[in-house]
Amino acid sequence: MSVRDEMLEMARLAKEASYGVSRLGTDVKNRALEEMASAIEKNSGFLKEENEKDLEGAAKGGMSAAMMDRLTLSDKVISGMAEGLRQVAALPDPVGEVTGMRRMPNGLVVGRMRIPLGVIGIIYESRPNVTADAAGLCLKSGNAVILRGGSEAINSNRAIARVLGEASKRAGVPAGAVQVVPTPEREAVLEMLKLEEYIDLIIPRGGEGLIRFVVENSRVPVIKHYKGVCHVYVDEYADMDKAEAIAYNAKVQRPGVCNSMETLLVHEKIAGEFLPRIHERYKSAGVELRGCAKTVGILKEIKRATEDDWAAEFLDLILAVKVVEDMDEAMAHIARYGSLHTEAIVTRDYSNAQRFLREVNSSTVLVNASTRFSDGFQLGLGAEIGISTTKIHAFGPMGIEELTTRKFIVYGEGQVRE
Amino acid sequence: MSVRDEMLEMARLAKEASYGVSRLGTDVKNRALEEMASAIEKNSGFLKEENEKDLEGAAKGGMSAAMMDRLTLSDKVISGMAEGLRQVAALPDPVGEVTGMRRMPNGLVVGRMRIPLGVIGIIYESRPNVTADAAGLCLKSGNAVILRGGSEAINSNRAIARVLGEASKRAGVPAGAVQVVPTPEREAVLEMLKLEEYIDLIIPRGGEGLIRFVVENSRVPVIKHYKGVCHVYVDEYADMDKAEAIAYNAKVQRPGVCNSMETLLVHEKIAGEFLPRIHERYKSAGVELRGCAKTVGILKEIKRATEDDWAAEFLDLILAVKVVEDMDEAMAHIARYGSLHTEAIVTRDYSNAQRFLREVNSSTVLVNASTRFSDGFQLGLGAEIGISTTKIHAFGPMGIEELTTRKFIVYGEGQVRE
Repeated sequence: MSVRDEMLEMARLAKEASYGVSRLGTDVKNRALEEMASAIEKNSGFLKEENEKDLEGAAKGGMSAAMMDRLTLSDKVISGMAEGLRQVAALPDPVGEVTGMRRMPNGLVVGRMRIPLGVIGIIYESRPNVTADAAGLCLKSGNAVILRGGSEAINSNRAIARVLGEASKRAGVPAGAVQVVPTPEREAVLEMLKLEEYIDLIIPRGGEGLIRFVVENSRVPVIKHYKGVCHVYVDEYADMDKAEAIAYNAKVQRPGVCNSMETLLVHEKIAGEFLPRIHERYKSAGVELRGCAKTVGILKEIKRATEDDWAAEFLDLILAVKVVEDMDEAMAHIARYGSLHTEAIVTRDYSNAQRFLREVNSSTVLVNASTRFSDGFQLGLGAEIGISTTKIHAFGPMGIEELTTRKFIVYGEGQVRE
Repeated sequence: MSVRDEMLEMARLAKEASYGVSRLGTDVKNRALEEMASAIEKNSGFLKEENEKDLEGAAKGGMSAAMMDRLTLSDKVISGMAEGLRQVAALPDPVGEVTGMRRMPNGLVVGRMRIPLGVIGIIYESRPNVTADAAGLCLKSGNAVILRGGSEAINSNRAIARVLGEASKRAGVPAGAVQVVPTPEREAVLEMLKLEEYIDLIIPRGGEGLIRFVVENSRVPVIKHYKGVCHVYVDEYADMDKAEAIAYNAKVQRPGVCNSMETLLVHEKIAGEFLPRIHERYKSAGVELRGCAKTVGILKEIKRATEDDWAAEFLDLILAVKVVEDMDEAMAHIARYGSLHTEAIVTRDYSNAQRFLREVNSSTVLVNASTRFSDGFQLGLGAEIGISTTKIHAFGPMGIEELTTRKFIVYGEGQVRE
């Protein structure tokens, strides 16, 4: 069978399954998630064996140690997958919620009911644990899912899918609700992106190259974020202790993730006091600073930032620093170089706080808190399937509610239109 | 300047304007809408002159009378545009609404604030009044808009844009907030669809050919509906009078629009009584019926429906009719041939009504009411910018709220992540 036919068959099966999954009661879905968690634990030996094949292949191919680490299904990663599935079982079921019921002048009663999207395609790289996480979130929200992991993890992903598929079937979930693309060819992704009749949404997770490839080739709607160029603006009226704690945490606590800070903006009136102070802290953590002319005037030993640095997602212990004349300049800098991900202001001033919240239209905007809180768990969504920096459908961290939509429902008593 | 450069310049100007528009107060936006309405009325002579040029061109090109009618800016159409703008001024402003504020265990207070999408592209055919309607809705929701009407209406659209642009500028709306693509070349649409950095959403309105062209070529997210193949299911327990009124209204009241019924499904237990009765009504209105084998067994004189008829959007006084064994068969037929637009059940049975509402996942589902109510005004949205039959971002009729999104806002007191 050709890759095209294989993908078409998977997508048809997923569409068919999606009708059944959308109608499952919450109790059935939760039981299935518990069964899936137990099955992951019971089959850890099998999962590690299959993972070993991928690791051997990766080692032969000269994969870096960091990438090998992400590819490994350790006992900790396996019990993390099981725990994740149990957490999803504990989340409220978004499907069936009815909101906004109102009586119209003609007596029609109109509202909206939350329903699953249908079939979701997830395209991701490296980490095989995404297979279990995404399968759990899609099932809980009543969707069928087609998972397409990287070719380097193909044996691990197939093994996880097999274990999850058998367990969910035992609990009454229709066959085809959770499928993993079994072929390593990239052509499979291209074919998947054409199936707009069967797949309702594609979520790519991975590097910018993968995501651009998906956006350029997809006829199916895509929700994604390219990168996180997040800012902290230390206002003229900032509390110095809070500013230091937040600027340090946002850069250093986990520099390799998308919600860490990449550029620090400092009001010129406090730059002389704040910059030397935070520079000491950063030095102790090995952070390299790259500054604008005014910054370099204060911190003589650091490098000048280039134009590229302002738009860079370093994902590392490197930070661009700019001194600004006022909040307008800070907000203009964010609008120009930011990626609509996450921005924070540190201030004691009421009006500046409110104005920053109102006028900065990134997906998460914080006052007096670290950018690192921009995360589905931290913001109370209970889980995270991805982050969106485009404004359509979802903006910011996406939980299971973002895997649903709302239809209009209308209760009538024989009304017709005049 | 090349078409590419021209589109890029328009999009840049729109992006720049969108920051200003997103911050306008409700009072400024409403004053601008009132000014725009008055300007349309005052300049009706100029608008009709420019429209005359399009009509002359269309007549030379041999355009059909129906299309010529849609292209015409009559006094009635012009006062309708003004009235539409005043109605939009009267709608509540969705921008700035804050919902779901909750205190997290660490003291962060997290919620969401409604914000505009940014820059919206509308691609449409024939009716120049869409120019004013769409401009009003985009302005009220805080967005900049780029309008691209059909080349046959280019003089009318440019004239409307000029009048609206001057009036809105007098009221304090940034230049570039409302722009009409001035070139008739189709290449302009292609270039527009590539500008994902500047345009946040494309809404195509027109025939299926135009919409497929947009979907296949766009890197910008698209919200659309291809067609409306809407169903009415007359249940075993239907009230006969209501069933007759609804089935008649859904087909006959305005057959050329997307929310009119295209296929009637009738439970076999009542088909013998209901079909002859509704057939009489339909005959009086000149409706041509095309039936399944069982239908033809009851209504001997009608034609057999072909496989194509079940999927057809007739947009005319033609109706496909099928007798079904039960509600499951009706719902399976809708899932197979429907377009996710609008479906209605007529029944007195409580459980069948509830089940149909729950399990039919089209964008609008009605009990005991005509499909013709699937419309933004009728469902209480106050206005309609389009209809979506894909589930991403919006599903069903779209009002001004669907031209916005929500960002996360977070009030902290110095919190950092552990």
